Amino acid sequence: MNYSSTLLENAVNELAKLPGIGRKTALRLALHLLKEKKEAVHLFSNTIAEMREQIQFCSVCNNVSDTQVCNICASSVRKKSIVCVVENIRDVMAIEATQQFSGLFHVLGGLISPLDGVGPDQLFIESLVERVKTGTIEELIFALNPNIQGDTTLFYIQKKIESFPVKITSLARGISFGGELEYADEFTLAKSIQNRISIERQKNNY
Amino acid sequence: MNYSSTLLENAVNELAKLPGIGRKTALRLALHLLKEKKEAVHLFSNTIAEMREQIQFCSVCNNVSDTQVCNICASSVRKKSIVCVVENIRDVMAIEATQQFSGLFHVLGGLISPLDGVGPDQLFIESLVERVKTGTIEELIFALNPNIQGDTTLFYIQKKIESFPVKITSLARGISFGGELEYADEFTLAKSIQNRISIERQKNNY
Repeated sequence: MNYSSTLLENAVNELAKLPGIGRKTALRLALHLLKEKKEAVHLFSNTIAEMREQIQFCSVCNNVSDTQVCNICASSVRKKSIVCVVENIRDVMAIEATQQFSGLFHVLGGLISPLDGVGPDQLFIESLVERVKTGTIEELIFALNPNIQGDTTLFYIQKKIESFPVKITSLARGISFGGELEYADEFTLAKSIQNRISIERQKNNY
Repeated sequence: MNYSSTLLENAVNELAKLPGIGRKTALRLALHLLKEKKEAVHLFSNTIAEMREQIQFCSVCNNVSDTQVCNICASSVRKKSIVCVVENIRDVMAIEATQQFSGLFHVLGGLISPLDGVGPDQLFIESLVERVKTGTIEELIFALNPNIQGDTTLFYIQKKIESFPVKITSLARGISFGGELEYADEFTLAKSIQNRISIERQKNNY
């Protein structure tokens, strides 16, 4: 396509590198930015450059942070004995949004996936083992996706820490709220029958 | 949602201002940019800032350009007597992609739309009238969208230039290639019967 301006074409090329943004959408975004005030576009580009330049990853849990230790790890009210192990930052946000978890996190930065060339060394597994070694952690909750990568990662970490007295749990699997039984897959339905909960217990939890 | 980093939150806010990008997509884009190399993100933000800062609009036709006069207007091989009037830059690209038009363009920058608060003064209509006044233009092809805004704009410009000897045409309306007759709307179908073309004439055009 003829862009009649190299500046516009360059911007479209850059925007089209973003995930899920094709060339047509990139052009629409570029033309939108062209219509905006100069100050607004400068704020846009500066904010993004600033984020990439200045953001830090928490030295304890590897979560994104503006400081060396993130505000979850630095909080005095959160239980330091329970650590929830997640794949990425979005999982931290999803769990934080429930407001039901008062422990700390550990962000692995991915899952072990030999097919994608991701080995244990590229993930923050060693730092998790170091945290376990300190002896302050009583329970590790694994909140990983229920697929081969998630299971492999769980198995690998379990092996690494088997000599330490830490309770290991995973998120409950079952029928989701609003989900219809007839559309649930057989495996999930089977698991939800095996791990059925008594109504009394459910009441107590409320 | 708790972002655990103000830098990340600011970037998500900026990305979510783009058209068609919600907060969830903005977060995905921001996390993608966080994973990229610092140089790549700097190139990204600089390219966009540079585009907004340095891009020019052709002083003749109002198309985007890297120079004061765009390469279409500056071209010596294009017919200066035929001008295609379009709403925006994307329409110029669409027509240029057909490689069937060898005249010049005039980008209005929008359509008259009182409901959206867009009046003739906000569009590049006066400069079009000035171009017509010079007497070099023999034909104006109106390639505007066939809706109320397009018709209003066409009618307004027609009134403005009625005293000048300029032929005014519009794009042909009819059944699109690959379109099925039974799904065509009645108005388009009626128009395509009224303005039917003889097979001989079509042959000559090829």
